[in-house]
Order: sequence, then structure tokens, then C-alpha cells
Amino acid sequence: VNVNGKPTRTIWASADGAVEIIDQTALPHAFVVRSLRTVADVAHAIASMQVRGAPLIGAAAAYGLWLAMRADASDGALAAARTALAATRPTAVNLRWALDAMMARLAPLAPDARADAARAAADAIADDDVAINRAIGAHAHALIRAAGARRGAGEPVQVLTHCNAGWLATVDWGTALAGVYAAHDAGLPVHVWVDETRPRNQGAALTAWELGAHGVPHTVIVDNAGGHLMQRGQVDVVLVGTDRTTAAGDVVNKIGTYLKALAARDCGVPFYVAAPSPSIDWTIRGAPDGIPIEERAAEEVTTVVGAAASGATTRVRVAPDGSRAHNPGFDVTPARLVTGIVTERGVAAASRDGLARLFPERAADAAASGVP
Amino acid sequence: VNVNGKPTRTIWASADGAVEIIDQTALPHAFVVRSLRTVADVAHAIASMQVRGAPLIGAAAAYGLWLAMRADASDGALAAARTALAATRPTAVNLRWALDAMMARLAPLAPDARADAARAAADAIADDDVAINRAIGAHAHALIRAAGARRGAGEPVQVLTHCNAGWLATVDWGTALAGVYAAHDAGLPVHVWVDETRPRNQGAALTAWELGAHGVPHTVIVDNAGGHLMQRGQVDVVLVGTDRTTAAGDVVNKIGTYLKALAARDCGVPFYVAAPSPSIDWTIRGAPDGIPIEERAAEEVTTVVGAAASGATTRVRVAPDGSRAHNPGFDVTPARLVTGIVTERGVAAASRDGLARLFPERAADAAASGVP
Repeated sequence: VNVNGKPTRTIWASADGAVEIIDQTALPHAFVVRSLRTVADVAHAIASMQVRGAPLIGAAAAYGLWLAMRADASDGALAAARTALAATRPTAVNLRWALDAMMARLAPLAPDARADAARAAADAIADDDVAINRAIGAHAHALIRAAGARRGAGEPVQVLTHCNAGWLATVDWGTALAGVYAAHDAGLPVHVWVDETRPRNQGAALTAWELGAHGVPHTVIVDNAGGHLMQRGQVDVVLVGTDRTTAAGDVVNKIGTYLKALAARDCGVPFYVAAPSPSIDWTIRGAPDGIPIEERAAEEVTTVVGAAASGATTRVRVAPDGSRAHNPGFDVTPARLVTGIVTERGVAAASRDGLARLFPERAADAAASGVP
Repeated sequence: VNVNGKPTRTIWASADGAVEIIDQTALPHAFVVRSLRTVADVAHAIASMQVRGAPLIGAAAAYGLWLAMRADASDGALAAARTALAATRPTAVNLRWALDAMMARLAPLAPDARADAARAAADAIADDDVAINRAIGAHAHALIRAAGARRGAGEPVQVLTHCNAGWLATVDWGTALAGVYAAHDAGLPVHVWVDETRPRNQGAALTAWELGAHGVPHTVIVDNAGGHLMQRGQVDVVLVGTDRTTAAGDVVNKIGTYLKALAARDCGVPFYVAAPSPSIDWTIRGAPDGIPIEERAAEEVTTVVGAAASGATTRVRVAPDGSRAHNPGFDVTPARLVTGIVTERGVAAASRDGLARLFPERAADAAASGVP
């Protein structure tokens, strides 16, 4: 999407052989591009969340192997680089998937062929992500247009989103926001209600920033406000991303997504989930109760990070010193509350049959491997 | 309730003729008692939210008239004091109700009788609030005990609450939390999930502090987390307060209450509203769509106030400079989502009939004055 009017990806290779990233820990208060020159730089960028979002982490790890191979293309260096990158975010599925794909491509090659091959393979992973998201965007654009049909000509379609499932979580376009950018770029007036998304405020800090950078009208709200807006007819469609969607259409996403899905159902607002096919977990076809929910640090709840009047990044405590906090990172929105799942192949009903119809080969693989 | 083991109200008259308050703007980081010596001191305390919560504001205004009458008990001074106090929070219903009651008592008296009468009337307003809340607490205690029946012996009943409907919003005991204190003091193990309640964080700052001060086990969560906890069976009952409940049982309360009511319904968790009878609006018997919802400052959304590492109260910005914010202060939970309304006379069904059965004289008055 655009930053200051210029199309920009979240990661790219520079002419002089560095990997350039947008440092997301500085957003929304500063736009900082960092040059990563070693695999250690890349590992640090992932671990410290300078880059985050499952698709972007995968691409960053792939480019990390490219930097490693340019410095030392031996078998030992390749294995060491893989290990260092895999250790950064041990639970991120895309990270392991991207590293496995890179290793399969690079390991059989002679060392002197590895650097160029790594660059080509990393570019391909990044380009594939962009292509998937562009396809999701085209399908979601149609849904946004349809949801806004009740608005008068020139009146913006009202979209509500939770967390950051935008450009910054991917290489470009985002998942849930891909349709918003497609609609906006096609001249459809669209306005986005941005849930701030406590505890880490990815909505207020990242989604608001990237929408603003691309020129999309938007308004930040606290996570408590979305239900009220839906009751009063101020939301036409809810669009969110997903960290993992089961083969039955149950959606694991940022904590609080379930509450918005309940309000959408109660108010008759369509609720769509943008899910690139790599985020669909074909191994879970039954009840999602067993999905482990990551518990994060209590400090994310008891404190808030922002920019003080001086501009300095500052952490302030909002709860009493003696109070405990609990911080589940995700919740599960049952398929019955989901109007549709937007994939790169189109919009599926949130059900086994709906997903299997769009991805018959995946469903068949899962059945063949004995998934109940 | 107790502070450091000592029973404490939120407001009281001192032996030397001052009005003592707990400065709630310093909580949860410091416990500061302020002595108010003039009606201007009281007006400032209300306007700056050193005291807040509808019942407490009413009592504070009553004590403000006492201070005014001790300085100058003339008709002119009485009228001026009333005007100054009424202007502090123009929308607070209890404030006007308390001032009207005080004026009806004081205006007919000779000036030299007014100071003593004002003190007695202010004490009566405070004591009435305590009595109402104690009665609500007894009824809510029974509900909490019943909701916890599925827990094993000694295992705490799990209560979830939103915002601050506790001791600090009243003279003592609170509304939604009155039952928690009653249960705890009676030896029933109880644990409270405290919604932080963005944007002003009354849950994290005030509810967590007062529960901790009284020794009630509690855990702070972000507003996004309650639905997930209910899905996983970690909440036995939801108890919230109300700013205004209609005669039909629709509940106006802090923004986000509606989302928790939806989750409670979806998960089969009872959802109760503690409503002192002065908060029931007998003039609204139809749909609540017309109730105006206060819009508060955007800065409450784009920034967060807390204690920096130095201990200094600091405001940090969490959203980009260019992003707009929208800040509705309340939402409406439809009666159909409310299991019961806990009043000082018992628990009513959330309906015209349910409320009229407990308050037949109020319902009759409303009918007689032509409320449709």
C-alpha cells in the first residue's frame, strides 16, 4: 500500500544487498526503515517484533537465509542460520513453513549456487503472499460493496475491524484490510472503525497508522464500543483476520473477536473472516475446545505503552501494584457466528462442506491421513 | 468497606467541620484523603472527578451545602451554593435530586437553623445510600451463592464485573460489588474478574484497588477477554451496575456492557444488573433507542493515563497523531439479555411487570402522569 503516496511493501531487498524492513515497534509515532545485513539482524527483528504478523515473519525468515548464504554458504552455516531463525518465535506456523520450504530448495544445491537461489526463493515467498492477499482483497471488495448497498450514493461503507490484519502483518495488502484497500483504490468510499485491540493496541497503533498512510478514512474506538455502533446501524460489515481457522470453520483470532461476532449476529451485521489458505488447519474438524490459547505476560494488561508528551516511548501502569492480571491472547469464534470465510479462491461458508468445496485437494489429503 | 483493615466510607464529616473525601484521581497509585472546607472545594472535587459515581456525587453535593451554610446561611448564599454545585456535572441525575431534596429542607428554615439542618440532611442522604446498597448486597449475595453451587466446597465463585459499580461510586458498599463484599465477609470464597474498562480504566484503576483494599481476590483482564473466559466455563455470574434502567428493564451502563451480556447469554451465564431504585427511569417504558448516549473526548481513546516508572502520573498517546477517535460513553443492554435486576427490594425480572411488582407505587405514579 502507499506510504506518503509511494507504494511500499513491509520488507524488500535493497540494491546494495540488505533486507529493508519497517520497524513496527516505532509505529505509530515514527516511520523507521531498518537495514538488516546479517542473519542475526533478521533474527533480532523477528524476536523483538520489529516485524510481526505470520505471513511477514515467514518472508523475513526466508530473506534471513539469503543474508546467511551470502556470508557463508556452507552446510554448517545453512543449518545454523535455520536454527537461529526458527528459535525466534517458536509458535509461529508460517515461520517454520517458510524455513522448511527454503531448506528443501537450498540444501541440495552446491554452496556457490545457494545465495542466488535463496534470493529467488525468498522473493517468490514474498510474491506469493502478495498474490494471495490481492486475491482475498478482490473477493472482500465485492462483499464490502454489497454490504454498503443500503448506503446512499457517495456515502461511505462502514467497516469494523479488530487487531491488525493489514498490510503490516503481511508483505503487502493484508488479509482483512486487503478488501478495504481494493475498495478504496477503486473509488468506493469506505470508512473503517478501528478497534484499539488491548492489550497490545495493534489496532490503534498499527491499523490506524497504515490506513492513514494510505489515505483511508478511519476512526479509532475502544474495544468496548463496537457493539453499540452495530446497535445504532453504524456498521455495515465486520472484517477480521485469523491466526488459525479449523476445517469446520471455527475461527481462532485475537482476543475479543468473539464478542464482535456476537454483536454482529445480534444486530444483523455480516461478519467475515479473511483467511489465506495456509491459515486453515485441516487437522481439526471437530469442536475447537482443545485448541490451546496462548497466555501472554500480565504486564501487557497492567501497563500500557505509548508516546509521552516528550515523544519518548513510555510504559505507564494502570492497575494497582498488588493486583494480578490474566492475559489470554486469542479466542475462538464458533463457525455458527461467521457469515463467510474469505480465501484466495473465493468466499466459503464457515463449515466443513464450505471449505472443502473451495479446497477439495486439502480436504481429501486430510481425510486420507485419517483426520476424524 | 475496609481500607488497610479499617472500615471506611468514601465521604464523611470530620470532627473539626470539614468534609473528608478519598481523592479518586490519585487511585490506584496513591491513597489520598482530602479535606474540603468550602463549597468551592466541593464543587471542584465533583467537577474534577476526585469524587465520581452518581450516588457519591449526590452525597458530596449535600455536604457542600452544609459547608456553604456554615459560612453564610443567607437566602442568597444558599441559592448561590446550589447553582455552583449543580453546574459541576450537568447531566448527573443524582446531583440534581440531592440538591432539590436539600433545598426543600433548608429554604423554609430561618438562616440560623440551616447549618445544623444541612448537616443532618446530608448525613441522612449518605446513610440512605448505604442502606440501599446494603440491601442490594444481601440480595446479590444470595445470587452469587446460587451461581457458585456448581463449584466444589472451598472453590471460589467466579464473578465478572465491568467498570466500577463498587464502594467508590457510592458512600459505601457499592451496587454491583455490594453482593461481592457481603459474600466475602460472610466467608463465601469469591473471586472477581475485573474488566479494565477502557477508555477511563475504572475497572483496572478503581475496582481492582477497592477489592484489593478490602482483601477480595481478583484478577484484572482486558475488556476483550470476558467472552473467552465465559466460553471456557471460568465465569459463574456477571454482575454490573447501571446509570439508568428503563421501566421496561433495558439497561444503560458503561460502554461494553452489552458485549458482556451477549457473551453471558451465548454461554449460559447469568447476567444481573444492580440497580438502586433511584436509577430506574419510570418515564421510559418503550424502546430505548431514543436515549441519548454521552459522547466523551476523543483524547480518552487516543491516550492512556497511568503511573510512569518514576511514579509520576503520565499520559501516553497510543494512536497516530492524524487518526480520529469516537468515544461513546454508554451502551444499552436490551432487557431480553438481562437475567434479573437487583434492587433494594429484591430481584426483579427485567420487564415492565417485573419492576412494577417490586415498585407498584412508582409504576402507578408513572401511569398516572401519562407515561405511554
